Amino acid sequence: MTRKRDWARFNPETDLAIDRRIDAPVDLVWSAWTDPDRLKQWWVPRPWTTPEIEMDLRPGGMFRTVMQSPEGERFDNAGIFVAVEPKAWIAWTSALLPGYRPAGDAEHCGGIHMTAGIEFRPDGAGTHYIATVLHPDRASRERHEAMGFHDGWGTVIEQLVEIVTAMKADAR
Amino acid sequence: MTRKRDWARFNPETDLAIDRRIDAPVDLVWSAWTDPDRLKQWWVPRPWTTPEIEMDLRPGGMFRTVMQSPEGERFDNAGIFVAVEPKAWIAWTSALLPGYRPAGDAEHCGGIHMTAGIEFRPDGAGTHYIATVLHPDRASRERHEAMGFHDGWGTVIEQLVEIVTAMKADAR
Repeated sequence: MTRKRDWARFNPETDLAIDRRIDAPVDLVWSAWTDPDRLKQWWVPRPWTTPEIEMDLRPGGMFRTVMQSPEGERFDNAGIFVAVEPKAWIAWTSALLPGYRPAGDAEHCGGIHMTAGIEFRPDGAGTHYIATVLHPDRASRERHEAMGFHDGWGTVIEQLVEIVTAMKADAR
Repeated sequence: MTRKRDWARFNPETDLAIDRRIDAPVDLVWSAWTDPDRLKQWWVPRPWTTPEIEMDLRPGGMFRTVMQSPEGERFDNAGIFVAVEPKAWIAWTSALLPGYRPAGDAEHCGGIHMTAGIEFRPDGAGTHYIATVLHPDRASRERHEAMGFHDGWGTVIEQLVEIVTAMKADAR
């Protein structure tokens, strides 16, 4: 399975990245990520919603999310996890489907093939949350950027922070 | 990493398969497969040749072969291994490149995306050699078949048998 060390070196030509320090321990951030009921609460920028999530949390396991617009239009995104290292590293790709079948064109994933990885790095009492998204080429990176990568992924990290802040308060 | 049990169920609509009993033990067949100098001797139907092979034999590792026509035209095929279980199971895909970067279109792999797996199953003193090739859709399977899958993969298994037969004679 992928380990962080096998990950492609970041290439500004083809890749996108976003990171943020979250004021909550890795345990909580990992849990908000990997519990589908929690993930649904922050995965897409509101007022969009995530009515469905399938996550089979192991390399090769399905990772499918359905995004829904405020008007009720649904967008399916399917792929598989390629790495699951609890509380450290999770990565998934749209290029393969369960059973390791190649996905072919990118119709099942919003028109853009990507492999994304999240590193959860302990940072004092908090977490350094580092997302890197690899694309096959410059055109895909540009399309993803034009679709609002930085706003979108930035917003959902804020939503994730809300969830873990509430979890932290509950834990007290 | 992929284990055989995670492999997609064979679908005659989208997939191709070929199997053969080889009269040599799994040890020898595995070694003829995983030693690049031996693999070069049987990987493509003669008089085509395989002037270059890169194999980094681990999940995520590069698997790149260059096929050359008798006229000297070269065809590059790149991908990564997704499973390497010594003497039991090896699988690779053209849908991802090293670093788990999605490959995008299929220009780097002869126009067809596939994930292929080989099972090496002990069968008495011999080996049951079972190749399964998964495609994203029916059109890719048909194109692969029209390009001569059965002849091509059949011929190279014969060439593999020649190599392991020679290895068996040497070992005596």
